[in-house]
Amino acid sequence: MDLETSPLALPFPDMPAIDGVTLRVARARYKEWDRCDLTFVELAEGTSLAGVFTQSACASSEVELGREQVKSGRARAVIVNAGNSNAFTGHRGREAVEAIQAQMGAALGCGADDVLVCSTGVIGVPLPKDRAKAGIEAVLQAPPCTWEEAAAAINTTDTFNKGAHASAIVGTATVNVCGIIKGSGMIAPDMATMLGYIFTDADVAPGFLQELLNAANAQSFSCITVDGDTSTSDTILACATGKSGAPRITGWDSEGADAFAAALGDVCRNLAQLVVRDGEGASKFIEVRVSGAVSDDSARRVGLAIANSPLVKTAIAGEDANWGRVVMAVGKAGEPADRDRLSIAFGGVWAAREGVPVDDYDEAPVAAHLKGQHIDLAVELGMGDGAARVWTCDLTHGYISINADYRS
Amino acid sequence: MDLETSPLALPFPDMPAIDGVTLRVARARYKEWDRCDLTFVELAEGTSLAGVFTQSACASSEVELGREQVKSGRARAVIVNAGNSNAFTGHRGREAVEAIQAQMGAALGCGADDVLVCSTGVIGVPLPKDRAKAGIEAVLQAPPCTWEEAAAAINTTDTFNKGAHASAIVGTATVNVCGIIKGSGMIAPDMATMLGYIFTDADVAPGFLQELLNAANAQSFSCITVDGDTSTSDTILACATGKSGAPRITGWDSEGADAFAAALGDVCRNLAQLVVRDGEGASKFIEVRVSGAVSDDSARRVGLAIANSPLVKTAIAGEDANWGRVVMAVGKAGEPADRDRLSIAFGGVWAAREGVPVDDYDEAPVAAHLKGQHIDLAVELGMGDGAARVWTCDLTHGYISINADYRS
Repeated sequence: MDLETSPLALPFPDMPAIDGVTLRVARARYKEWDRCDLTFVELAEGTSLAGVFTQSACASSEVELGREQVKSGRARAVIVNAGNSNAFTGHRGREAVEAIQAQMGAALGCGADDVLVCSTGVIGVPLPKDRAKAGIEAVLQAPPCTWEEAAAAINTTDTFNKGAHASAIVGTATVNVCGIIKGSGMIAPDMATMLGYIFTDADVAPGFLQELLNAANAQSFSCITVDGDTSTSDTILACATGKSGAPRITGWDSEGADAFAAALGDVCRNLAQLVVRDGEGASKFIEVRVSGAVSDDSARRVGLAIANSPLVKTAIAGEDANWGRVVMAVGKAGEPADRDRLSIAFGGVWAAREGVPVDDYDEAPVAAHLKGQHIDLAVELGMGDGAARVWTCDLTHGYISINADYRS
Repeated sequence: MDLETSPLALPFPDMPAIDGVTLRVARARYKEWDRCDLTFVELAEGTSLAGVFTQSACASSEVELGREQVKSGRARAVIVNAGNSNAFTGHRGREAVEAIQAQMGAALGCGADDVLVCSTGVIGVPLPKDRAKAGIEAVLQAPPCTWEEAAAAINTTDTFNKGAHASAIVGTATVNVCGIIKGSGMIAPDMATMLGYIFTDADVAPGFLQELLNAANAQSFSCITVDGDTSTSDTILACATGKSGAPRITGWDSEGADAFAAALGDVCRNLAQLVVRDGEGASKFIEVRVSGAVSDDSARRVGLAIANSPLVKTAIAGEDANWGRVVMAVGKAGEPADRDRLSIAFGGVWAAREGVPVDDYDEAPVAAHLKGQHIDLAVELGMGDGAARVWTCDLTHGYISINADYRS
């Protein structure tokens, strides 16, 4: 089926090339479609690697292998197959991944374990080895492509191409951080929740790159939800080529570490929000801000309980400032809360304070706020200093249409 | 808005009167509607009481008071207000409940704490004390009514009246167990998840009645979900008048205890399934059977992860045997599972066994099964002996329509 572009779509940004990163795409025809669906990212020798993966107990072979591969801290190639997730395909699925690794390793003259493979699409159909083999041959001959062409080739039900960019001064050099991501449904916060690729020409030691990615993930990919469902394939990889000429970053004491961490965090947060903006059926982008929790982690869990509530999400779809449903979601979160200290605001207007509806509550500005595309929902728990921001979208007829018809 | 009767509705059963239980209904007009919305159940002196309540941290005053009241193990009256949940209304809400208790206690010549009050409907609007007072005056003058009239008066967005009945031989007497329930949305398994009332003329000691209700709840109300959202008001009460003349049941060693427990369990399971059958927008009733888990509780949690998954529920709405989404839901449940031991069947036909799609999988009988109204989904984890059954409904456009328009 043809999906209309999300009303929350943003234009693809101008993103600079990253020295040491070459993008190529080809048609492997994993599905009956006429589009590029195999992406090959070639990485310069010496590139550092970090990654975060789904916590699904039924993860794909790609994820199982990837979890091992990031321990080495290095990579020479990333292959992304779109249209077939190769998940739940047993030994046949694993053989398909290993064949791709061997073929690409031979072509690049590197070890098979320096080739990362990710797949996204239908679950339960082994990745066709013949199509993968021909696709790899084709992509090795393909000319380099743009960020947006690569972003398009990793998409499945996505309705727009997603990328984000930031830069930082490290020493006297400018380093760039560029990322692309795909994801639209089966999005829930459990480490990483989509396929995302972040590249930088900064020179970052693998262990510290992993530390920074974990920290950025905790405030970006782990703070979004579309439907509370967790993919079997979710992967975020960060690759640092070190080609900028900027001094090496090995820890927080290194020159420019803070600036680089901020740039990486910006790119992660922007990429995560783009996934929400392409949430299946989304018509509104919702930011849930929770404060006054007993800890930041508790605040995040309360925020996710609200963001995952079908009743909250349908109320916002209906442009109804139904804060009673927010009370319900706070109550079910399983986190410390006290009904009589709870306050709730839409668009900065308090509807309820400390457990009771506000007496002179003016619904007019709230109703106007809810007609917009960007909804701000604030919850103050009155229990402590913990705070978090969580992002989601509304739940509409579009979600039902997409998921009752599309076999993912 | 007018809701059409659920396609999964069942006719209201013939249910016998319970000696010691008198039902009356009246119009309190808690909303702008012309229907009975206040139910008064008068209970004979000496009636035993048990109850289970929502675990919401933002529960209503009714629930807070009810949790205390069941500790006494006795009750003389149950009042149910429909159309206003009185939740999140602070001290004004609590005063409204206490006023009802005092008024009814004076009328019956019993203590205020022998009067249980439940309310269901909009959150955040204090129950209007004047309407409650006039309603109580009216209901005290009302003639006794039928089970179905009482079941209708406790409904809110429900589309049909729900009741269940069973009987048991205790000693030489037949005892009856009759229950009514309301619930349609904001249904999630967290102790009890709706308003339900069970009455019996058996003579059961309060402590043992509570033990039996807890056990029945664990295999009925705690095994259903419509949308994963947990109400602030959920309450199930069991009242035993002891008027049957059957010998008193004080523990498992008492004559007829097993038979009575089975009857109570039947009524609870039937009531719970009726709530799913009235799930907002439901077009299919889904039974999820999980076996091979490390424990029964683990099986229940895996079952609920499947039953709560929007992607599984929309796939079934679309009559798509999308077992890949079931794999996904098992993976996210957070329970011990192994992709390579997992098997999944629809309507008794295995689609995947031990981690791989079945080679000669015949989708035709499965497609035929999915066109029906009763869907059977079996998951074998291959990890141990734990098993559970969980019930839910599909997720359709109807759910979105109801919840994006109705302020609950």
